[in-house]
Amino acid sequence: MIVVMKPGASKEQIEHVSKLVREMGLKDHPIVGTERTVVAVIGDDRFKDRSALESVAGVDKVVRILASYKMASKEVKKGRTAVPLGGKLGGVVGGKKVAIIAGPCSVENRTQLLETAHAVKEAGAVGLRGGAFKPRTNPYSFQGLAEKGLELLAEARDQTGLAVVTEVMAVEQVALVARYADVLQVGARNMQNFNLLNAVGEQSKPVLLKRGMSATLEEFLLAAEYIMSRGNGNVMLCERGIRTWEDYVRNTLALAAVPELHHLSHLPVVVDPSQGTGKNHLVDAMCRAAVAADADGLIIEVHNDPAHALTDGAQSITHQQFADMMKAIARIAPAVDREV
Amino acid sequence: MIVVMKPGASKEQIEHVSKLVREMGLKDHPIVGTERTVVAVIGDDRFKDRSALESVAGVDKVVRILASYKMASKEVKKGRTAVPLGGKLGGVVGGKKVAIIAGPCSVENRTQLLETAHAVKEAGAVGLRGGAFKPRTNPYSFQGLAEKGLELLAEARDQTGLAVVTEVMAVEQVALVARYADVLQVGARNMQNFNLLNAVGEQSKPVLLKRGMSATLEEFLLAAEYIMSRGNGNVMLCERGIRTWEDYVRNTLALAAVPELHHLSHLPVVVDPSQGTGKNHLVDAMCRAAVAADADGLIIEVHNDPAHALTDGAQSITHQQFADMMKAIARIAPAVDREV
Amino acid sequence: MIVVMKPGASKEQIEHVSKLVREMGLKDHPIVGTERTVVAVIGDDRFKDRSALESVAGVDKVVRILASYKMASKEVKKGRTAVPLGGKLGGVVGGKKVAIIAGPCSVENRTQLLETAHAVKEAGAVGLRGGAFKPRTNPYSFQGLAEKGLELLAEARDQTGLAVVTEVMAVEQVALVARYADVLQVGARNMQNFNLLNAVGEQSKPVLLKRGMSATLEEFLLAAEYIMSRGNGNVMLCERGIRTWEDYVRNTLALAAVPELHHLSHLPVVVDPSQGTGKNHLVDAMCRAAVAADADGLIIEVHNDPAHALTDGAQSITHQQFADMMKAIARIAPAVDREV
Amino acid sequence: MIVVMKPGASKEQIEHVSKLVREMGLKDHPIVGTERTVVAVIGDDRFKDRSALESVAGVDKVVRILASYKMASKEVKKGRTAVPLGGKLGGVVGGKKVAIIAGPCSVENRTQLLETAHAVKEAGAVGLRGGAFKPRTNPYSFQGLAEKGLELLAEARDQTGLAVVTEVMAVEQVALVARYADVLQVGARNMQNFNLLNAVGEQSKPVLLKRGMSATLEEFLLAAEYIMSRGNGNVMLCERGIRTWEDYVRNTLALAAVPELHHLSHLPVVVDPSQGTGKNHLVDAMCRAAVAADADGLIIEVHNDPAHALTDGAQSITHQQFADMMKAIARIAPAVDREV
Repeated sequence: MIVVMKPGASKEQIEHVSKLVREMGLKDHPIVGTERTVVAVIGDDRFKDRSALESVAGVDKVVRILASYKMASKEVKKGRTAVPLGGKLGGVVGGKKVAIIAGPCSVENRTQLLETAHAVKEAGAVGLRGGAFKPRTNPYSFQGLAEKGLELLAEARDQTGLAVVTEVMAVEQVALVARYADVLQVGARNMQNFNLLNAVGEQSKPVLLKRGMSATLEEFLLAAEYIMSRGNGNVMLCERGIRTWEDYVRNTLALAAVPELHHLSHLPVVVDPSQGTGKNHLVDAMCRAAVAADADGLIIEVHNDPAHALTDGAQSITHQQFADMMKAIARIAPAVDREV
Repeated sequence: MIVVMKPGASKEQIEHVSKLVREMGLKDHPIVGTERTVVAVIGDDRFKDRSALESVAGVDKVVRILASYKMASKEVKKGRTAVPLGGKLGGVVGGKKVAIIAGPCSVENRTQLLETAHAVKEAGAVGLRGGAFKPRTNPYSFQGLAEKGLELLAEARDQTGLAVVTEVMAVEQVALVARYADVLQVGARNMQNFNLLNAVGEQSKPVLLKRGMSATLEEFLLAAEYIMSRGNGNVMLCERGIRTWEDYVRNTLALAAVPELHHLSHLPVVVDPSQGTGKNHLVDAMCRAAVAADADGLIIEVHNDPAHALTDGAQSITHQQFADMMKAIARIAPAVDREV
Repeated sequence: MIVVMKPGASKEQIEHVSKLVREMGLKDHPIVGTERTVVAVIGDDRFKDRSALESVAGVDKVVRILASYKMASKEVKKGRTAVPLGGKLGGVVGGKKVAIIAGPCSVENRTQLLETAHAVKEAGAVGLRGGAFKPRTNPYSFQGLAEKGLELLAEARDQTGLAVVTEVMAVEQVALVARYADVLQVGARNMQNFNLLNAVGEQSKPVLLKRGMSATLEEFLLAAEYIMSRGNGNVMLCERGIRTWEDYVRNTLALAAVPELHHLSHLPVVVDPSQGTGKNHLVDAMCRAAVAADADGLIIEVHNDPAHALTDGAQSITHQQFADMMKAIARIAPAVDREV
Repeated sequence: MIVVMKPGASKEQIEHVSKLVREMGLKDHPIVGTERTVVAVIGDDRFKDRSALESVAGVDKVVRILASYKMASKEVKKGRTAVPLGGKLGGVVGGKKVAIIAGPCSVENRTQLLETAHAVKEAGAVGLRGGAFKPRTNPYSFQGLAEKGLELLAEARDQTGLAVVTEVMAVEQVALVARYADVLQVGARNMQNFNLLNAVGEQSKPVLLKRGMSATLEEFLLAAEYIMSRGNGNVMLCERGIRTWEDYVRNTLALAAVPELHHLSHLPVVVDPSQGTGKNHLVDAMCRAAVAADADGLIIEVHNDPAHALTDGAQSITHQQFADMMKAIARIAPAVDREV
């Protein structure tokens, strides 16, 4: 880090900063400029708290140089991590094939789930999404079928070979969900539920980690780091739109996060254009754009009857729309040396 | 709600919407305008999912009329709820006195905590803040003293009479924290950790609920509703700054939330100018502004030695700065018919 | 619009609202619901100020139903407007071919401009961008070559056939810039400089209108409406990234704006991935994504020597990178029934 | 500035950066750390374009140390600039008295303006606001009375002694508006209309500069610098709310900008709680909070009949509400050593 002193900071103030830096076990290197003095800090300060230095007299600000994640970073591993999804279809996120995960927002009943599972499998999906535990903003809304939903997901997997991707909302659900699911999803609202991150890090199923709706990429990668630091390296990063002042979408899908995450990290990147827009008429174009931006996978809400969906009807696409979209992205993938 | 049809929507499409509305147990009331047809929906649709209607052919958008929280709303209770903090000093949030809660970001050790506890008590605080379990963005950062920290907080309460306010991060910590603390704090990152909200709703200690860093007021009040719907009505709403593109602060303190929350809800409102700015040189002015805006309480980070704080040194103020601030707000409170 | 009354609004208050609505020349249609009364307003209220109604006693809020732009809207014209760029190459924005406009951020000197112009033309561009008048945040920064820059642009057009696209910053520059340029660009900072919008609307060259960095799509389309309402229908909408709290990019490129603008308007849509990210290593992926999202054109900063660029070096790509990108998008375009 | 190299940057790359720094007339000072090499740049680099360095091979990022405004900065002048408003009442922004500017959003007619002018003068205002040229999002909305409005403002000043504060939207209006007004207002949408900033900088009337709705404080101060660098030092900075995702307000009033601007600059700071919230029921609390935060002035929309206002009725307060608010802030001002 670099400690920038205020103009006119006294010699004593600069020396005090140097002393605090050395107390941290780091080396100070003051540079007297024409306008300001800065104290460069030498050594690995990634896990030091720079906040305290900002409160010291004569200090203007402290600028960080090193990112604070490590296992998730490209400095540790150059190539892209390929995460096997499980399921008989052998889907992998981070390989040459773009992995498509699709299914209803919530598991509502057996017919709904199985119909959609078969339809998305037909069209080329390798994973089945569907919530059994639903994080709902409103305490009075439908909260999911819980274990009954997990059973239905397992049945759908048995029939189709699709890998089951489903959300786990709390530490106490981890063991149960891991018993049925192939991939554990951590939702956007729980991206900084650190106890949950630790818990999914201590089991062995792969984790699909959704970006918090106002999380920076550094915070996102540090959340992945929580999981990895507990022993589970099979983490998929999922961009699902961020909260901005835009009012024609539920979230703003920040697609530049795809190349930037690939630039910073070896972990594979999945895009969720359903949550990422909130409107079914935008899903198709954003699926195409995500593949063109070199996403490793897509996760998409598909419903057999959106007008009667219990949750997220507005952003679900139909079986037919899904099949059409699959054809379009199959034509785009080769331009980025991928296939679908 | 109001279902707005697209221009040129067909008669069949409008009738289909009416039918879906009736299926929901509500009454439809179509209005043919000169430019558009809208279908007004009559009945209590607060807990219906309007999302499905948005996916119906011919529908342009669905506009909600009713807020979806109920127990937190002013429609249920007119006056302001007064929440007793506990502790021998008898502090109340939501009464005539503005309640001041102060203390270090983290409990670091016995000397630090007790020195600061005595100092803030002297200056007029009624509550002591201090984290024993710390939600840290970085898995390698100091994570708090856990139960040892809770013991020190209890000791500080015994010596000073201050009510102890401390964060609970996970369902499995609730019983432990409730044994030591007077008030359970739910942090911003957990505002939509619904399992945790349910758990603190099912115990009897008051809850200080922090606004998520990108939560709308409706989402904030629905989080309070989760707690209340489980039986705990002693909820304090805490504005602690929101994430915006502003770069001179850690968060943008949205002080208009104070009068707006008072407008929408009977729950008392606390302001956190430390998290809310992230810079100690801004804390003083924002404390004054919050009291002038009629906040029911303040929660402030105070440290005996900010330059050596283990967490949040940059936003902590010293004992002396705290005492000076208390004098300033004591002069402002009468202008809003309050005292400190 | 719909006027939503507060719970418990009196009969007099509702009647007062009805009266105000009729004073506006509109028809009132009150609906008494179980929870609230609403007054639906019938008639074309697009150009009425609903703000005043919000201040009336008993009114909770006023919900708008109709978008307030008209000439820019799809309700007026179904197909997509094709805007001819001018220049001997015959480029069109809004036709089957995706139109590529490329060149330096600023015109710096003759060699730089001509080298880049020839290079982008070789690679397939149809338009040449380059600023002669530069809006600079800092008053002490390079402000552009002014008329000298326009002359160089005209020379480059004469040599290459590329259409010249360049920014006009003020009413008093319109005539001058229109004399040299084929397309007048209105920059993001001037999107709501209404006097400038009127001025470019009163001349006949096509206008490339950049979205303001915090403009909603409605505000964006209303800015286009300003230009169109003065007689110039050749408006191209340019998404160039919006300001959010994301910190790894200069702006967040909101690509869902492309399909949404096509959904709302007949005007063609151009994407600027250079401004839209601010980092040259992200430009390539975002060009591909924009084409996959069905953008009608791209505008890209290309420099013969980014390390010595006077402006925006960080987001400029080299001649070679541009040529490679062109090959990639040529492979993507057919998937959306386009070509490059 | 500090140039941060990528991990593993080669010796040649580092030397190339050093060379480019020296080409800029600055001194390079490379520091080899344990994790990264950084090249500290010594000399006044405020007006150098760091963007080009970011595109150089081996460079990770460039961190700026010095703010790029100068005349607006506290490094140039320590005390607070006091700007005399003009008008017979002798109002000053930046002195001991908090200066109150009030009046209608738009000048609508003679009766409206004079009634309100007398009312706000009675209650203690020293300035009269009122738009004659109105920047309207919608081309079909009321655009103001133009010169007729300016004449009415001048008449109101003659009757009351209030200083006239009114907006100028374009270079070609500057001379006209300056003939009638005491203070020229530059609106939020024009904060980066650099030609207009230059034009108001070249005349002698004081300027009230509104912060752009997504402008950082540095951009805001650089806009002030434009005006000052042309010779006009009488600039007042006006915080009027910023655009965020908050949906209960038209803008989020960022009150911490008041102490931060005082920290960075000697220019006085005015707060606009009307634009800053967009709702009349929030104006009162935000006026009090602004004064408690040590604002030097307030600018407030007041209307004799908000329900019939032609513009901004929803955020205008009545004469009575204004008078009540004035009493409240008079009680708060002494707590910050001010008076009203």
